[in-house]
Amino acid sequence: MAGNTFGNLYKITTFGESHGKGIGVVIDGCPSGLKLDVDYIFAELQRRKPGQSKIVTQRHENEEFEILSGIFEGITTGTPLAIFIRNQDQRSKDYSHIANKFRPSHADYTYAEKYGVRDYRGGGRSSARETAARVIAGAVAKQVLNQMGISINAFVSQVGEISIPNDAPLDLSQTEENIIRCPHQETAERMIALISQIKKKGDTIGGKISCKIKNCPVGIGAPVFDKLHAELGKAMLSINAVKGFEIGSGFDAIKMLGSQHNDIFENIKGKIITQTNHSGGIQGGISNGMDINFNVAFKPVATIISKQDSVDSEGKKTIVEGKGRHDPCVVPRAVPIVESMAAMVILDHILIDRSTKLENLKT
Amino acid sequence: MAGNTFGNLYKITTFGESHGKGIGVVIDGCPSGLKLDVDYIFAELQRRKPGQSKIVTQRHENEEFEILSGIFEGITTGTPLAIFIRNQDQRSKDYSHIANKFRPSHADYTYAEKYGVRDYRGGGRSSARETAARVIAGAVAKQVLNQMGISINAFVSQVGEISIPNDAPLDLSQTEENIIRCPHQETAERMIALISQIKKKGDTIGGKISCKIKNCPVGIGAPVFDKLHAELGKAMLSINAVKGFEIGSGFDAIKMLGSQHNDIFENIKGKIITQTNHSGGIQGGISNGMDINFNVAFKPVATIISKQDSVDSEGKKTIVEGKGRHDPCVVPRAVPIVESMAAMVILDHILIDRSTKLENLKT
Amino acid sequence: MAGNTFGNLYKITTFGESHGKGIGVVIDGCPSGLKLDVDYIFAELQRRKPGQSKIVTQRHENEEFEILSGIFEGITTGTPLAIFIRNQDQRSKDYSHIANKFRPSHADYTYAEKYGVRDYRGGGRSSARETAARVIAGAVAKQVLNQMGISINAFVSQVGEISIPNDAPLDLSQTEENIIRCPHQETAERMIALISQIKKKGDTIGGKISCKIKNCPVGIGAPVFDKLHAELGKAMLSINAVKGFEIGSGFDAIKMLGSQHNDIFENIKGKIITQTNHSGGIQGGISNGMDINFNVAFKPVATIISKQDSVDSEGKKTIVEGKGRHDPCVVPRAVPIVESMAAMVILDHILIDRSTKLENLKT
Amino acid sequence: MAGNTFGNLYKITTFGESHGKGIGVVIDGCPSGLKLDVDYIFAELQRRKPGQSKIVTQRHENEEFEILSGIFEGITTGTPLAIFIRNQDQRSKDYSHIANKFRPSHADYTYAEKYGVRDYRGGGRSSARETAARVIAGAVAKQVLNQMGISINAFVSQVGEISIPNDAPLDLSQTEENIIRCPHQETAERMIALISQIKKKGDTIGGKISCKIKNCPVGIGAPVFDKLHAELGKAMLSINAVKGFEIGSGFDAIKMLGSQHNDIFENIKGKIITQTNHSGGIQGGISNGMDINFNVAFKPVATIISKQDSVDSEGKKTIVEGKGRHDPCVVPRAVPIVESMAAMVILDHILIDRSTKLENLKT
Repeated sequence: MAGNTFGNLYKITTFGESHGKGIGVVIDGCPSGLKLDVDYIFAELQRRKPGQSKIVTQRHENEEFEILSGIFEGITTGTPLAIFIRNQDQRSKDYSHIANKFRPSHADYTYAEKYGVRDYRGGGRSSARETAARVIAGAVAKQVLNQMGISINAFVSQVGEISIPNDAPLDLSQTEENIIRCPHQETAERMIALISQIKKKGDTIGGKISCKIKNCPVGIGAPVFDKLHAELGKAMLSINAVKGFEIGSGFDAIKMLGSQHNDIFENIKGKIITQTNHSGGIQGGISNGMDINFNVAFKPVATIISKQDSVDSEGKKTIVEGKGRHDPCVVPRAVPIVESMAAMVILDHILIDRSTKLENLKT
Repeated sequence: MAGNTFGNLYKITTFGESHGKGIGVVIDGCPSGLKLDVDYIFAELQRRKPGQSKIVTQRHENEEFEILSGIFEGITTGTPLAIFIRNQDQRSKDYSHIANKFRPSHADYTYAEKYGVRDYRGGGRSSARETAARVIAGAVAKQVLNQMGISINAFVSQVGEISIPNDAPLDLSQTEENIIRCPHQETAERMIALISQIKKKGDTIGGKISCKIKNCPVGIGAPVFDKLHAELGKAMLSINAVKGFEIGSGFDAIKMLGSQHNDIFENIKGKIITQTNHSGGIQGGISNGMDINFNVAFKPVATIISKQDSVDSEGKKTIVEGKGRHDPCVVPRAVPIVESMAAMVILDHILIDRSTKLENLKT
Repeated sequence: MAGNTFGNLYKITTFGESHGKGIGVVIDGCPSGLKLDVDYIFAELQRRKPGQSKIVTQRHENEEFEILSGIFEGITTGTPLAIFIRNQDQRSKDYSHIANKFRPSHADYTYAEKYGVRDYRGGGRSSARETAARVIAGAVAKQVLNQMGISINAFVSQVGEISIPNDAPLDLSQTEENIIRCPHQETAERMIALISQIKKKGDTIGGKISCKIKNCPVGIGAPVFDKLHAELGKAMLSINAVKGFEIGSGFDAIKMLGSQHNDIFENIKGKIITQTNHSGGIQGGISNGMDINFNVAFKPVATIISKQDSVDSEGKKTIVEGKGRHDPCVVPRAVPIVESMAAMVILDHILIDRSTKLENLKT
Repeated sequence: MAGNTFGNLYKITTFGESHGKGIGVVIDGCPSGLKLDVDYIFAELQRRKPGQSKIVTQRHENEEFEILSGIFEGITTGTPLAIFIRNQDQRSKDYSHIANKFRPSHADYTYAEKYGVRDYRGGGRSSARETAARVIAGAVAKQVLNQMGISINAFVSQVGEISIPNDAPLDLSQTEENIIRCPHQETAERMIALISQIKKKGDTIGGKISCKIKNCPVGIGAPVFDKLHAELGKAMLSINAVKGFEIGSGFDAIKMLGSQHNDIFENIKGKIITQTNHSGGIQGGISNGMDINFNVAFKPVATIISKQDSVDSEGKKTIVEGKGRHDPCVVPRAVPIVESMAAMVILDHILIDRSTKLENLKT
C-alpha cells in the first residue's frame, strides 16, 4: 500500500534515498535456475548512469552493487534476490540551502505535507536515484525474457520540437550509437545540439521515449482491470517526470475512423498477424503476438539554474536557486528505465499466465 | 491476478458477461455508516445507458439493479456490497454469425488463444457491458467523496478533429446539457453533427475525455510505484477502447522548457497554491491540493458496418460483417465511466493515507 | 483488506448476510476449460445443509444456487465464476428480541463497535451462513484437484470427550455412512448419542475435525511467510467457531524428542518417502509428497437455550434467551467446509508453483 | 506470491540466507514521525541471539545491523525502512558433508524438489537465521504499539512434559529473569534441568510458547477470511518448527459445553468486559478489548547428534550425522519471534481499521 512494491509474481520492493546509505531492491519471484549475468546488470546501470556524456548531469553516483542474497554458485535459487548500491557522493551540505524551501514542481511540498517529515537531501526518496533499483530488477527480468526470445528496445523519439520523421526507417540496433539514444542518427545530432544549447542557458527540456517489444507470446495479460497496456501504463507513469502514456495509435486514435483504425487479421503461413498494428500488439488487454509499441512523455526536469519564487515550510515567500549538476533533459538516461519497467510487466504476466488453462496444469 | 479486482482498501471485483445472466460487482471496503443513495446510482447508470440519445447505440440494456448484500436499513454496514444487473436483451442468435470469426480489433482472437474457450456472444466478458459494474462502484465511491467535498467531473473535449477551443471558458455544470457531454455548447453541436454523419456511413470515430477533480486533500497518493497519476492512468487505460492517458501538461510537456513548465508556489491567505498547474495537481505522485486534471484518448469503436477481411478460428480467410446497433463514438457514454474509475482511485488512496502518520494513530 | 477475499491465483470473494438477499461468491482465477459438474457442487452443499439429520439445526435454508457468470456451454471460460444462493427462510422477526443485545460469545458486540452499525438478523455477515459460499468455491477447486488425482477427506475425530481410538484403522470412504461424519462407526454412534443428549438440554458441545490430503505433488507451498501449513492454518482458523489448528504431530510435538520426531527418508522403488509422518506432509513449508494431515478444534456453538446475563448496546444489563433452531454441535456440518478451505489452499499453491522454475517457463 | 512478504499496510519483505552475505528486511508502511529507538531493536535481537545461555546453541551469529534507508535525523520518514545484518560466522565448510544429503525433517528435500537448486549451507533460506529479520521488524512495530499503550508478552509455558501449573499466578515481568523465559521460576528451573539433560544426550525436545496482548483496542481485525486470530495463526505457523496454534480456549474447547464456554458480558464502570475469556480476546474475528491469549506448539529441533538413515540427492541410501552447535530446544530463543509476529499482525490491523467508519474519514 505504501507504494514501494511492484508486480505480482515477479515482485520487486525498492528502498533507499538519494543521500542516505544507498539504494536497493528485493526481487521476490525470480524463477530459480537462472545463471545470473552480473556484467549485464552492470552494463544496464551504465546506460542510466550520470556523467556518461556531455548532455547529462555531471553528478557522480556509485553504480557498484552488491548482491546480498538469492544466488548460490551463480544460479538463482528462487529465494529473494536482494541487491544494494551504496551511495558515495552524498555531499549533503549541497542541499542545506533548500532544507526549508519547497522547490517548484518537485515533491518537496507534497512529501512534507503527507509525512510531516522530509529528507530534503537531494529529494530523498523522491529522487530519480531510486530508478537505479528499477534498472537492476529490469536487467534480471530481461535475462529471463531473453531466454524466451523476447526483446525490449526503447529509444528517444522526440526532444522538444525535434522528432524522428514519421517515414524514417528505424534500425533499433543503432540506438546506443549516440549519446541521446535515438536510432535515427541525423535526428540524434539535432537533439544533441538542442540539449547542449538549453544546458548552456541552465534550462531544461522535455522529451519522448518510444518502446518496442518483440516476440511477446500471444495471450499475455489479464482482461478487465489488469489489461496489459494498463499495467504498462502504470509502470511508465510511475517513472519520475512522466506525464503521459499511449499504446499503439494512442492519442492519434482520437482523429481516426474505425474503418481506418481496425487491424485486419491475416494468416501468413500458419501465423495469424494483423496487416496494420494500431492496436499496438494488445487487443482486449491481451497480447496478440504483434510488436507491442508505446510512447512515454517526459516533462522538462524541474531543477533549473534561474532563481524562482517559492514558499518555505512556514509558508513564507522565498527564492529557490538551482545549483550545479542537473540533467538538461531526462530522456537519454531514462531509456533503460523504460525498458526495465516494461520487462517486469511482461515477465510478471507471463508467469501469471502459466496457470490460466486447465490443460497446462495436468502436465 | 486474473484481473477482475481493482483497488486496495476500496476494492471492487466485477463479474459477468454481455450475454450471460448479467453483470455484477462486489465492493469490499466501503466505509460503514454511509446512507446509500440508490437513486444516485441509478442516475449514474442512465448516463452510461445505451439508447439514451440518437448518437449512441440503440441497443437495449437493462439498468435495473439489485443490491444483494452490504446494507441494512439503508446504511452500509462495512460488509461487502454486492450489486447485480440482470441482462434482459440477450438476443444471442445475433452473434451466431461471428461464433468462429475473429472480428478485427476486438478481443476475440486474444481471448480464444489465452483461454482456449470463448463466449462469443457480444464479446462475452470483453464487452463494454462490464463497465456498468464500474459505474455502480464509482457511484458509491462518489457518495463517500461528496461527503468530504470532493467533486469529479469528466467531459468530452474532442471528437475527431473537433475540440474545445483552448481559450474557451468552461462551466462544467453545463456538461449534461447536451447529448455529447461537452460543456462548450457550440463545440458540442459540431461534435454531434460529426457523429451523426459518421453514423450514417456505418463508421465510427475516436474521441477524448478530460477530467477535473476538485478539492482533493493535499498528501493523497503513494510515491514510487503507486503514484496517484500512475494509479489514475492504469484505471483509465483499463477502460475498453482507451489508447492513451496524460496528466497535467501531458504530451505537451515534451516541447516545454523547465522554466515554462515549473509551477511556482504561492501562499494565498494561508493556503499554498501554484500559479500554474502543469503538474495537474500531483507532484512526486502525491496530490498538492490543486485541481487534478487529466485526459483520456479513446479509439474509434471496432464494430463497423462495412465488410472486413478476417480469419476464423481455424485460421481460414473469412469476411466479418457488422450488424445493427453499435456506438458511432464511445465518448458520450464513457464520461461516467471515467469519473467512476477516478472516484475509486481517489477514495482508495484517501483510505490508505489514513494510516500514514504516527500522530494520526494516537487519536 | 476488509477481509472478504481469500487466495492469490485461485481467489474468491464472498458476500452476503444470514437474513439479507442471499449469499454469494466470486471465484476469480478458476482455470479455463473445466467442464463444471454442477451436481457435485449441489451435493457438497447438501453435506453442509441445516436439517440434514436429527443432530443438526432444523432451520431451513435454501441451497439452490444460480451461476451468474463464468461458464459458457458448461465449460469455465477463465472469467470470474459468480454463484449466488438466494435466502428464503429469513424470518427476521425471530431476531428482533436481540436487536439491541449482545449475545455472549457471538460477534454482536465487536461488529457494533467496529462498524458503528450492525445487521442483527441472525448475526448478519458474521453468521456461519457465509460458509455456504466457501463450500461452493471449494467444490469447484476440488473438481480441478480431482483431475490431478488429489483427494481431500475430512472427518469428525472427536466430540467432547469421545474420540476415535488411536489405533483404530480408518477407512475414509466410510465417513459419509453416518450423520456425524466419523469413519469409525462405533465411535460415531457414541458421538451421536452424546450430541442427542446435549441437544435435549438445550446446550452445545465442541468437537474436532481431522483432514487428510492425498497425492499432493512434492514442492507445493511457499517458504517463509506463506508456508503451506501456515496457509492451511489461516484457512481453518477463518472458519466460524474454530479455536485451534495443528499440522502433523501438532501439540503432541511439545512432548517429543527430536530422535522420536524426525521422519527418516527412504527410497521405495524410486519414490522418496518418510518412514513416519510427524511432519504432516510438509517440511519447511513445502509439501514432501506424503499425506498432509491436520486437525481443527471447534468450540461449542454459542447459541444455547438457557438464559444468560449480558449487556445491551447502551451498556445496560440485560438477559439473552436462546430461541429455536441451533446446532448442538457444529462439526458434522463443518466437514465439507474444512475440505473446501483446504482444497482452495492446495489449488492456489499449485497454480503459484507453475512459475517457480525457469525450465518450466521455456516450454 | 513467493512468500517472503508479510502484512498489508505494515508490510515486510525479508531476504537472505544462513550462510550468504546476510539477512535483511524491508519494512514498507511504518508510520512516519516515529523516533526510532535503535537500542531497543538491538536489545530484542539479543533475546533471540545464539550463545546467550548454556541451553541454546553456542553458534556465533553477528547481530550488528545497519539501517540502510527510511530514517532521517533519527525519525521515520514514511519511506521503506531497510535493515541488514551481515553474516560473519559463515564457516560454509561445516556443511559440505551434507551438500548432497537430505537431513530428516529439514527442508532440504522439499527445497531441492521445488527449486531444482539448493543452497545447502546451514539450510540457506530455510534456516531459522531468517527470523532475525522478523525480530527487527517486530521491534519497530512494538515501538509504534507502545505509543498506543499496547503490550505484547510471550513466555515459555511448557517444555516436554513440564508445564506451568494451571493455577500458578503469573507475573510476566519475571519472564526475562531466567534463561528459559518462563515467568514461573520454579517451573523454569525444572525446564532448564530437563533441557540440559537432553542436550548432553545430543537430543532435542519440543516446547510451547504462550502469548498475551494487553490493551488492544476493541474492533481490530477483519471478519470472514482475515479474522484477527486467523492472521495471528498464520503468523505463528510461519515460524520455523511451529506445529500448532490455538486461541483462547483452543483445543480444550473440544470438550466444553456452550454453557461453560460462553463469555458473559458485564459493564464495569462504563467498560464492557467479559467475566471469562475463553474467546481469547477475539470474537467473530474482531478484538473485544479483553487480553488476547494464544499458544504456539514447537516441535523438537530436527538437528540431533545421533546418526540417522536418509537418502541423498540421487536417491541413494546414506547416513546423516549431526555436528556441533544446535539448539536442544527452540523455545527460549523463539519468545521474541512470537512477540514480533504478533506485534506486526496487531499493528497491521490497527492501520487497516483506520478507514473502516465513514465518520472517521471526515475528520
